[in-house]
Amino acid sequence: MTHLTLALDAMGGDFGPRITIPALSQALAQHPMFDCIVFGDQASISPYLHKLSHDFQQRIEFVHTAKTIDDDLPFLQAIRQSKGSSMRLAIEAVANGKAQGCVSGGNTGVLMGLAKQLIEPLPNIDRPALTSLIPTINGNSSVMLDLGANVETDSQQLLQFAEMGNIFAEVMLDLVYPRLALLNIGTEEHKGNPQIREAHQQLKQRNHLNYIGFLEGDKLMNHLADVIVCDGFSGNIALKTLEGAAKNILSLFKKPTADSHLCRHTKRYLLRLIFYRYYKKLQQINPDRHNGATLLGLSSVVVKSHGGASEKAFFYAMDYAVQQIAEQIPQKISKRLQK
Amino acid sequence: MTHLTLALDAMGGDFGPRITIPALSQALAQHPMFDCIVFGDQASISPYLHKLSHDFQQRIEFVHTAKTIDDDLPFLQAIRQSKGSSMRLAIEAVANGKAQGCVSGGNTGVLMGLAKQLIEPLPNIDRPALTSLIPTINGNSSVMLDLGANVETDSQQLLQFAEMGNIFAEVMLDLVYPRLALLNIGTEEHKGNPQIREAHQQLKQRNHLNYIGFLEGDKLMNHLADVIVCDGFSGNIALKTLEGAAKNILSLFKKPTADSHLCRHTKRYLLRLIFYRYYKKLQQINPDRHNGATLLGLSSVVVKSHGGASEKAFFYAMDYAVQQIAEQIPQKISKRLQK
Repeated sequence: MTHLTLALDAMGGDFGPRITIPALSQALAQHPMFDCIVFGDQASISPYLHKLSHDFQQRIEFVHTAKTIDDDLPFLQAIRQSKGSSMRLAIEAVANGKAQGCVSGGNTGVLMGLAKQLIEPLPNIDRPALTSLIPTINGNSSVMLDLGANVETDSQQLLQFAEMGNIFAEVMLDLVYPRLALLNIGTEEHKGNPQIREAHQQLKQRNHLNYIGFLEGDKLMNHLADVIVCDGFSGNIALKTLEGAAKNILSLFKKPTADSHLCRHTKRYLLRLIFYRYYKKLQQINPDRHNGATLLGLSSVVVKSHGGASEKAFFYAMDYAVQQIAEQIPQKISKRLQK
Repeated sequence: MTHLTLALDAMGGDFGPRITIPALSQALAQHPMFDCIVFGDQASISPYLHKLSHDFQQRIEFVHTAKTIDDDLPFLQAIRQSKGSSMRLAIEAVANGKAQGCVSGGNTGVLMGLAKQLIEPLPNIDRPALTSLIPTINGNSSVMLDLGANVETDSQQLLQFAEMGNIFAEVMLDLVYPRLALLNIGTEEHKGNPQIREAHQQLKQRNHLNYIGFLEGDKLMNHLADVIVCDGFSGNIALKTLEGAAKNILSLFKKPTADSHLCRHTKRYLLRLIFYRYYKKLQQINPDRHNGATLLGLSSVVVKSHGGASEKAFFYAMDYAVQQIAEQIPQKISKRLQK
């Protein structure tokens, strides 16, 4: 594969360049084969860019824009006022071929709206789906989609999500014949809404897919399926519920606020010492490691990071984008769907 | 309040009388003011009934039936063949006034179907909603509905769920002016499907409700709302996802399978000793304590326990039913809705 270019909206997210540039530095170290075009405000970004090594600076092209999209703007207004913003410039860099993918921690709705407007969709895909890896309790991952790009989804779209998710799992999780399931409120055939039941009947007939049936919410983390397909409304709620539960439960071990500093650290040390294996397991389900959702179904890679992502979490989102570009995920989906 | 009677389907759930009768014993000890009619197979139940104290046996009326509803039967077939089954007899006891409420761990769909057929609905309620208390990270609870009784829900039904949930929270959580939220995929006004946006607009105008707006899945456990209203499809998926995440994460501390027996117990002891406060917190979010979902909107109390409930968890479901009967939840909802 030739050299790759990633476009970065350095201003998106709650913390902007304070997080995004150090995360970029980690990604440059991790993946020697990519360059980055960074979009954002020079005054805010320069202090962080200057801290990078000369080698890394050589791999960065910087494009100044003072304009960012305010997270609190109503959707349509944000889209209308997006011209010249760091997010839109990053997406335009992808649309006109200067980069093969982009990453932003900005407003999800606006990012999806602009990406769908500016970037060519894949043939045979009606609407792209927000796709992410979710952690499983045994330390593996499952692919889940749609996570919120489509509030209402018909059975044909669910089938397209299934086909895309299948290829995504083959490549990103390195699997042959991934197990595919539909997220539903029960496992019996009569359960769920008409569109999910119709998709179920159709998937049973697609022999090139390893369709295993319905999966319930309490089994999401149990690695019973490699690809979990759902409509964007319940998928978004399920993913956020999972993340919220994991974060909340892990936080019990992180913030013993009533303890003194020493006592806190001693306890944490003891916890890690005695329960090293559990601690490792808890770390595996840490949502930070699974930060980054792809808008799957476009001809280029568009990755959304959590707005509140830490430096480490934002690194994972960039890492995820670079891997997808290197693996040519959009091209592979396009090729398979044309068969 | 006069004496209460609860009808118990002793055969429902994965373990039947082995779990339900010892749980009943705990409930009888907890609540001296209720009697119980137990429905089920004499041969399976007698050994457990005979272990109970004479006092408790005096408070139990036993009705033999050899018939149970097979969990694997298709829904319509199960309903057709339900006559004389322990579940149907328990619901009939409620319908004809012999008991004020019933508890079953049997098939959820069949229980809801029979309850809706046999028990009078409340006036002004189109369809009942499956309602449960969910654990919050600070050790409190929120009321959540619908959790799966209605796969598709229009805005009027969401409003009815809000009114019922409001009264449920006032009584069961002992709150004045409970905070009410709609579960959605974002907090901005344009987010979600048409029915949730319409319900949002209407709720803003109901001044007798303390409506606080949309709530996302990652905040479910954060006690930001006392009542969380949703459609049955996404509500079911959210609740199961929450339960699955909590169970899976707690299981990391329960099953260090590779350790020896002694080592395992030592570790567990150390964990509890050093992290007593965390352990207490983890116990608070243990889904067992929140077992039991009520079919709210009927003129009597119908509580569904998890099929796989432990003795302790089944006790909580019975405890929850007895409290609702004692508090006259259906009567209070009916009275308020007629205003």
